[in-house]
Amino acid sequence: MKNQRKTSYPVADVIVNRWSPRALSGEAISKQELMSLFEAARWAPSSYNNQPWYFVYALRDTPQWATLFDLLVAFNQSWAKNAAALVLIVSKDDFHKTGKPSRTSAFDTGAAWENMAIQAVSQGLVTHGMEGFDYDKAKKVLNIPDGYTVQAMVAVGKLGQKNLLPPELQEKEVVTDRKPLNEFVFEGSFSS
Amino acid sequence: MKNQRKTSYPVADVIVNRWSPRALSGEAISKQELMSLFEAARWAPSSYNNQPWYFVYALRDTPQWATLFDLLVAFNQSWAKNAAALVLIVSKDDFHKTGKPSRTSAFDTGAAWENMAIQAVSQGLVTHGMEGFDYDKAKKVLNIPDGYTVQAMVAVGKLGQKNLLPPELQEKEVVTDRKPLNEFVFEGSFSS
Repeated sequence: MKNQRKTSYPVADVIVNRWSPRALSGEAISKQELMSLFEAARWAPSSYNNQPWYFVYALRDTPQWATLFDLLVAFNQSWAKNAAALVLIVSKDDFHKTGKPSRTSAFDTGAAWENMAIQAVSQGLVTHGMEGFDYDKAKKVLNIPDGYTVQAMVAVGKLGQKNLLPPELQEKEVVTDRKPLNEFVFEGSFSS
Repeated sequence: MKNQRKTSYPVADVIVNRWSPRALSGEAISKQELMSLFEAARWAPSSYNNQPWYFVYALRDTPQWATLFDLLVAFNQSWAKNAAALVLIVSKDDFHKTGKPSRTSAFDTGAAWENMAIQAVSQGLVTHGMEGFDYDKAKKVLNIPDGYTVQAMVAVGKLGQKNLLPPELQEKEVVTDRKPLNEFVFEGSFSS
């Protein structure tokens, strides 16, 4: 899972080796393997320990798979068909205890998602987050109540050979770079 | 940094050992140490690799410290005074390239924050996220432009002795638990 990213400062391998491939092998994963990803999400921090995150999953070759898979745009279906699981990530808008709106519910749920992604790396799995799916339809067909927000969909699987991808996706199958630190880290005052 | 959390499924140490102490030692950290946290954040995933996250930081014993510290509510000041750095986390609302609203900007920025928190564990540092500060004043005094949203403040430091905390905070200085998986992980359909 090593990649060619160059870091300006030392970073734990499990963080820099995480990336979002589309070339998945089509191999299955066990429910146990998937549950470790949710277990990792479980231990994320959240404001007042509110734990606003929810996950709706489907393993491939189960009756639930088509329900999640059909939500994806065609582009994402073209490669996510080889995922072992799809996971819809949802957040609760209000605090569980007080019912007051939580300004950090999406942010905290993003932290839980990253725990999933990092846990996947540590298990030899890969994840690819997507916003290319029908959010409104997801809410309806997965019975997500009012007061909850759909955040993202994630494909989970095992890394496959790049040459199994459609040609136009092979070009895109690269470890992405990032902007330099000085464009988003500021001392004492924001500079846009 | 080991703690007593019990997991239902195996999880990487760096994830389950992350927690949010308030007992900080008052020791300084180097700018280099802090930069590794931002470097970790840098490699988080985001929709279309948009990288919506921004960080405004102050190391203690610098002219910038008071600007961030003064934003905190008194409760957080009572312990965060022993932090080595404060970091305000900000997200850009719209995609950089298209100017269109990004529905995942808070969520993606939460992923970057969790990378920071995990990187801290791997460096022997601790982090504590806070929403107990003046968001509106933060926007003003840190010159955060319109179109950017303040997400959270984070105290970064080294773990200190619990008995250095004010008595009422010593009681709260525990590794928090989480709700069980079956309350937030669902197969195929949401159950609230």
